[in-house]
Amino acid sequence: MSGPFPERVCVREVGPRDGFQNEPEVLATDDKLRLIELLGNSGLQRIEVTSFVRPDVIPQLADAEEVLDGIDLPDTVSVSVLIPNERGLERALAHRERFQEVNGFLSASETHNQKNVGRPVAESLDGLRRMFGRARAEGLRCEGVISTSFGCPYEGHVPVERVLEIAAALAEAGCEEVAFGDTTGMANPVQVKEFFAAAFDALPDAELTAHFHNTRGQGLANVLAALESGVESFESSFGELGGCPVPAGATGNIATEDLVSMLHEMGIQTGIDLSALLDASRAVQSVLGRSLGSHLLSAGPVRWQS
Amino acid sequence: MSGPFPERVCVREVGPRDGFQNEPEVLATDDKLRLIELLGNSGLQRIEVTSFVRPDVIPQLADAEEVLDGIDLPDTVSVSVLIPNERGLERALAHRERFQEVNGFLSASETHNQKNVGRPVAESLDGLRRMFGRARAEGLRCEGVISTSFGCPYEGHVPVERVLEIAAALAEAGCEEVAFGDTTGMANPVQVKEFFAAAFDALPDAELTAHFHNTRGQGLANVLAALESGVESFESSFGELGGCPVPAGATGNIATEDLVSMLHEMGIQTGIDLSALLDASRAVQSVLGRSLGSHLLSAGPVRWQS
Repeated sequence: MSGPFPERVCVREVGPRDGFQNEPEVLATDDKLRLIELLGNSGLQRIEVTSFVRPDVIPQLADAEEVLDGIDLPDTVSVSVLIPNERGLERALAHRERFQEVNGFLSASETHNQKNVGRPVAESLDGLRRMFGRARAEGLRCEGVISTSFGCPYEGHVPVERVLEIAAALAEAGCEEVAFGDTTGMANPVQVKEFFAAAFDALPDAELTAHFHNTRGQGLANVLAALESGVESFESSFGELGGCPVPAGATGNIATEDLVSMLHEMGIQTGIDLSALLDASRAVQSVLGRSLGSHLLSAGPVRWQS
Repeated sequence: MSGPFPERVCVREVGPRDGFQNEPEVLATDDKLRLIELLGNSGLQRIEVTSFVRPDVIPQLADAEEVLDGIDLPDTVSVSVLIPNERGLERALAHRERFQEVNGFLSASETHNQKNVGRPVAESLDGLRRMFGRARAEGLRCEGVISTSFGCPYEGHVPVERVLEIAAALAEAGCEEVAFGDTTGMANPVQVKEFFAAAFDALPDAELTAHFHNTRGQGLANVLAALESGVESFESSFGELGGCPVPAGATGNIATEDLVSMLHEMGIQTGIDLSALLDASRAVQSVLGRSLGSHLLSAGPVRWQS
């Protein structure tokens, strides 16, 4: 049935980090723990649960230690934390037994990197090399995330060669997985196909992950293009939460439930129970007290009425 | 750049009929005329402007005559009206010089047809044969629209063979174009590819049009699958207006501006000025006084900030 598509893909839920970080309100730690537990019960195999960023800069994630210590997840879930730098890693390592992966990030575009983390790309890369080196020594799996891989809201086109040069540096630094972020929803399916054809050539040994945003409604079309290019790993956010701190107004990730619904309808397995996942999405919508962008939350799964 | 994709596709805007019909409020005729004029100024080549349904059943379109007589559109726009039956056609023919196409519809699923128009499919088909015959004699171009082509909210799976049998009957009745509607957003990309492969085989002489809804966020992914199958004609609705009278809660068409943005970004031409189209979408959002589902209306076109 699935023709040229993979039989199974892996989905990493990033809502508890990418989503909660971008909420104007700081969620209560107990709410976070309950929501992450609901996500864990859905069969998700990868969940990014928090980030060890500076609490004064991102108060929404100031409870990173409490979240890591408090979560109760099945052994089948690989827990990851986003780490901005070595100092963040030190904080996380005090809870080493509570997570299995670290995710480090930078932007492919100089301007976006400068506005997001206040330093040039080369400097970010140096810091990540040190951070990933230390994480590897601790036996942690490493993922590098490259923002603005498909275009920059400040610079426009970002050359594929530049993105893949950074990706190769991350692989060299020890990343078994590299994720390419369409941070402000500028990717289109033709571009996605060309991009991943080049990326699989350039990085034959790394797991390549697509991280799309639904800013212009093309999120799932880009997923389809990525699937057709051989991508078998995606990141998404329950409820369609998330965005990016810069520029203001950058809107949400693709919704995990919309992604999983499409994959299942296409005959592609994820190991996720869509109904249990929707329980988590309904719960986060209730905690946030507003309608979220997720389509499945409104329409429900594909099925018919009696 | 566009690889296996068509160089150019045709988009029919159905918002003034499909959209306005599903609004709880009846729009003022002057507002309709102004909005249709804005659409006409965008370079759209096909606009469905109203429907000659019974005014007591659908008061939102009770001004069909006034709309037809009042619209001021460039000669390049092919104006179509939705016609439910011969009586509707009689009303429309009193304004024969004001439009070029008639669109007639039925459902592929017996239950949906019964709930939507209160008769069996075979009876609808008989009525459409008479209606299209009369329209052809008047020199009108004819399009048949088949709702629930990709699944029925009451019956579930609708066999491809059944949909194509109805499509062949419509072509036989004089339709140069047959549109397949995913009325309640049940289609997925694998299904869309299989469907259109079979449809192009079965109907080599008709123009085949895809009419997707974004109910579960897969609208543009289904467009991509249709493009890859050779479809060069789409229907959509500005602002993401529209839906279906049954069942309650069936949500909007794909947004014309989201569709056009994706096509243009993919290097596929439409002849449409996206900026002028967004003027129309902003205007209808202002008239309706609520945020619409369109992504482009929130995010704007792909471009970068200075």
